[in-house]
Amino acid sequence: MRASRYLIATLKENPSDAEIVSHQLMLRAGMIRKLASGLYTWLPLGLRVLRKVERIVREEMDRSGAQELLMPAVQPAELWQESGRWEQYGGELLRLSDRHGRDFCFGPTHEEVITDLIRNELKSYKELPANFYQIQTKFRDERRPRFGVMRAREFLMKDAYSFHADSASLDETYDQMHRTYCAIFDRLGLDYRPVVADSGSIGGNASHEFHVLASSGEDEIAFSTASDYAANIEKAEALAPAGERPQPGERMEEVATPGQTTIDEVSGFLKIPADRTVKTLLVKAENDEGEAAGLVALILRGDHTLNEIKAENLAGVAEPLTMATDDEIREATGCAPGSIGPVNLPLPVIVDRAAAHLADFVCGANREGYHLTGVNWGRDVEAGRVEDLRNVVEGDPSPDGQGTLEIRRGIEVGHIFKLGNKYSTAMGATVLDENGKSTILEMGCYGIGVSRIVAAAIEQNHDDRGIIWPEAISPFEVAIVTLNAHKSPAVQEAGEKLYEQLHQAGYDVLLDDRNERPGVKFADLELVGVPHRVVVSDRGLAAGTLEYKGRRDADKQDVAVENILPFLLKASPRKGL
Amino acid sequence: MRASRYLIATLKENPSDAEIVSHQLMLRAGMIRKLASGLYTWLPLGLRVLRKVERIVREEMDRSGAQELLMPAVQPAELWQESGRWEQYGGELLRLSDRHGRDFCFGPTHEEVITDLIRNELKSYKELPANFYQIQTKFRDERRPRFGVMRAREFLMKDAYSFHADSASLDETYDQMHRTYCAIFDRLGLDYRPVVADSGSIGGNASHEFHVLASSGEDEIAFSTASDYAANIEKAEALAPAGERPQPGERMEEVATPGQTTIDEVSGFLKIPADRTVKTLLVKAENDEGEAAGLVALILRGDHTLNEIKAENLAGVAEPLTMATDDEIREATGCAPGSIGPVNLPLPVIVDRAAAHLADFVCGANREGYHLTGVNWGRDVEAGRVEDLRNVVEGDPSPDGQGTLEIRRGIEVGHIFKLGNKYSTAMGATVLDENGKSTILEMGCYGIGVSRIVAAAIEQNHDDRGIIWPEAISPFEVAIVTLNAHKSPAVQEAGEKLYEQLHQAGYDVLLDDRNERPGVKFADLELVGVPHRVVVSDRGLAAGTLEYKGRRDADKQDVAVENILPFLLKASPRKGL
Repeated sequence: MRASRYLIATLKENPSDAEIVSHQLMLRAGMIRKLASGLYTWLPLGLRVLRKVERIVREEMDRSGAQELLMPAVQPAELWQESGRWEQYGGELLRLSDRHGRDFCFGPTHEEVITDLIRNELKSYKELPANFYQIQTKFRDERRPRFGVMRAREFLMKDAYSFHADSASLDETYDQMHRTYCAIFDRLGLDYRPVVADSGSIGGNASHEFHVLASSGEDEIAFSTASDYAANIEKAEALAPAGERPQPGERMEEVATPGQTTIDEVSGFLKIPADRTVKTLLVKAENDEGEAAGLVALILRGDHTLNEIKAENLAGVAEPLTMATDDEIREATGCAPGSIGPVNLPLPVIVDRAAAHLADFVCGANREGYHLTGVNWGRDVEAGRVEDLRNVVEGDPSPDGQGTLEIRRGIEVGHIFKLGNKYSTAMGATVLDENGKSTILEMGCYGIGVSRIVAAAIEQNHDDRGIIWPEAISPFEVAIVTLNAHKSPAVQEAGEKLYEQLHQAGYDVLLDDRNERPGVKFADLELVGVPHRVVVSDRGLAAGTLEYKGRRDADKQDVAVENILPFLLKASPRKGL
Repeated sequence: MRASRYLIATLKENPSDAEIVSHQLMLRAGMIRKLASGLYTWLPLGLRVLRKVERIVREEMDRSGAQELLMPAVQPAELWQESGRWEQYGGELLRLSDRHGRDFCFGPTHEEVITDLIRNELKSYKELPANFYQIQTKFRDERRPRFGVMRAREFLMKDAYSFHADSASLDETYDQMHRTYCAIFDRLGLDYRPVVADSGSIGGNASHEFHVLASSGEDEIAFSTASDYAANIEKAEALAPAGERPQPGERMEEVATPGQTTIDEVSGFLKIPADRTVKTLLVKAENDEGEAAGLVALILRGDHTLNEIKAENLAGVAEPLTMATDDEIREATGCAPGSIGPVNLPLPVIVDRAAAHLADFVCGANREGYHLTGVNWGRDVEAGRVEDLRNVVEGDPSPDGQGTLEIRRGIEVGHIFKLGNKYSTAMGATVLDENGKSTILEMGCYGIGVSRIVAAAIEQNHDDRGIIWPEAISPFEVAIVTLNAHKSPAVQEAGEKLYEQLHQAGYDVLLDDRNERPGVKFADLELVGVPHRVVVSDRGLAAGTLEYKGRRDADKQDVAVENILPFLLKASPRKGL
């Protein structure tokens, strides 16, 4: 490609409304432009990256045996009513009506459409397992779209759906998709981690997220220092502390703590470290039928934080997790918030594993302005039900027993789920099994945020001059810069010749033949993030050399004209050469 | 691809709601499934075809120097209000509101979005010409979607938009796009014609349609028997008859024609051929300011039909063309419809070229139940304004002076337009010219119906057994059928070996390894339309042969196992082999 005939729409200034670096750099490098809130046009340079990501995803999905199809973006409401999601899905579902007043949505996901297709097309267990995918434009009407294509409303997604006669087959395909996703992110050249995740409201019983590691990531991920273990912090298990609980050493006493209600205040006032206190959180309870059943108390060590996902997944705790209001607390306990504690509390209690391991601890006295010190489980109050309630912290033992946990931030770019039979039951998707009996299908679903990967790659790979693309998804692999080509036929000719040569060798080459100052060209190419740059100049040609600089290199180097191809093939090998 | 692991969803029966053959065959061959009215899922087999069409379009667009980008499907109403189309566009524009109540549409086309982008990005004539395209999902809320993907609501389109500092540059790119489209349809292997078209309400001053010829086509196209001339019948010029108008030979007389109002009735009653009569059509008139201005009479030879597009494009005729009601005719002429004629008509008159060439003709007498015979222009009534008003008919002279016209049917699959400055003026899209002066951009736009091409290819290429794909877009190029492979290891091994061999040679191969009867496999492959079929059987292997049959062949033939690759390479050459 010749830059003189290509839209290189770089910007000097950081756009004021771009909060994160990938958004800023995609705008500045001329990869995207905003059309409206959460809606972006992919300019030619950005689209090249998007298509390269798309191609890698497609090739690896095909290699896995998945079959590509393409479902409509616009979906009839009837199917969503059948699955129950027409009512459940919130404002993110873009609902619309056609000219005849029939209800549709612009699909944010396609479980209903594919389940409808499969219940009509597949009849026998012999046709299973089957895994169908599409790479398609989705719409999610985010309340507050932001971060450019990272959290856009219209976005490109790969979504796959697998169908099985039994859960063993689902397990096999799930594992295969796990391997396929690793192959995809390996090829993309990204530092990523598959992490155990909460499967949330989508239902099902197992899920992994794939995160691109980046300090700007929205999610926290807990890793083992000694093994492959990695989990979203929402899901990472906090083990019970090792060993027996220490024996009581103090007497329980009620002490006045006037005006001290937070853990910081109480531990400061009593000169006791926070990890010797407990906090008592009152939340809505529910019975086995899912009906409201008053409040339940959650007890955590004072220095720990509640993991809401773990809590709401517990039997007896209402989902979604709902904190009691001050009035509800007063009504249930006769005491103001800030002085609540487990001793003589007239409510069911669930104690976190770490809190349950404490001895001689401090808690609220259920009397306004008073706390208890020297409290001990068993002696002063029953610990009763002990569960994992808290977020892990750095240094916690890894749940797999190997090493301790580190916490880093990640950007979720993929997610695989075992859906089980949630949709197939709701929509009556069955096949005949070996005995000719109708059996409900097991399903898996597997998503990759194709457009989001572009932004995530930048979050992970950039410096103060711009983007540093992994080669596999760079819009161009090599840039040739001709200096003063408009005045020097020799430079122009050498540039064209090199362009042809590298093109023939299989490189994706940008010839920067623009009539611009060298500084402008260099700055643009660094901003755009092309991995390899070769400069053709009169001075170099006189010495028989070209100037090479890798995007991550501190220094440039001269390479003899005749050695440039072998040099590049070493820096960036081509298949078969 | 192995058929045993692939969704071959053929149907035996013709679906009852499919009216045209491509729709029937796409359903029966398992290429698409209906999700809702005008919304189709592309099954794996159909998607392979769609992607092959898309790839050819992309490669040729890239070769032309056009730059691919990708604009959002969802577009803000504000831009359409700026161009004026938010009001003008009818019910086909799918309007929607987001969660904040802002108005958007699901774009049926992208003139507004690209013009908005370009007015912000391009500043100087030096950046021109520029041609941007995308291959993208569009939505048109057809009142009555039908014919499968031929007239679907959601469809895949390639749309390109070019920008120019002057009209000479637009002409150049327009001609280049014309050549690119020919290259695309050549590569697709379709019998097509570029035809001169009316540019209609989209504005602009030149346009060509690209039609795939098929007897089921919705459009009529007029061709010269002796030259390249081809035009949509809407646009094909009807030349004036050669030579001088014959001299009057009869006297004008008023004759009673009680109850005879149509041309057929009058010519039958008077025993005068229809091509010696004229019909007088009264339509709404407008003045130079576009305001309503009563009625105007259009005079055609009795055997000719009015071309509405030609008529409404004439000065003085209201657009869209609107026939006068019976009451309006009575009020304007004092006479009932069916007896109107040009003699002493108190209205302006426009006479078709052929009608203006008549002598001694019959027309209404402007008196109910009476006609005039022996009427002659000049002597009895002034012909006044003579224009081309009629549809051409077979045998008319070609407008380019070479040969006569034939009329065939076509399916419009591409359309190129010179838009001029319609959108750039409305939306203020300018650049600075060589003198630093702001100049309005000239625009062209160029569409191809990617998904529609799939259906059009089938309309043109099928027989009573199924589809006959042009090789370039066939889902598979070669099918290998193994007979009784489940019982014969030799057949299975030979099939696998051949599959590998052909795959290596660059063929897109389907190995039909399904455990089905030979007749079922053969019928499926003919229905699906794979161009080349090779059968591996025990009987053949014993004789050292494979059985070959081309999809258009009447007979099969035996080919020695060792000769099959050279044989196929002859039937379907590969590049570089």
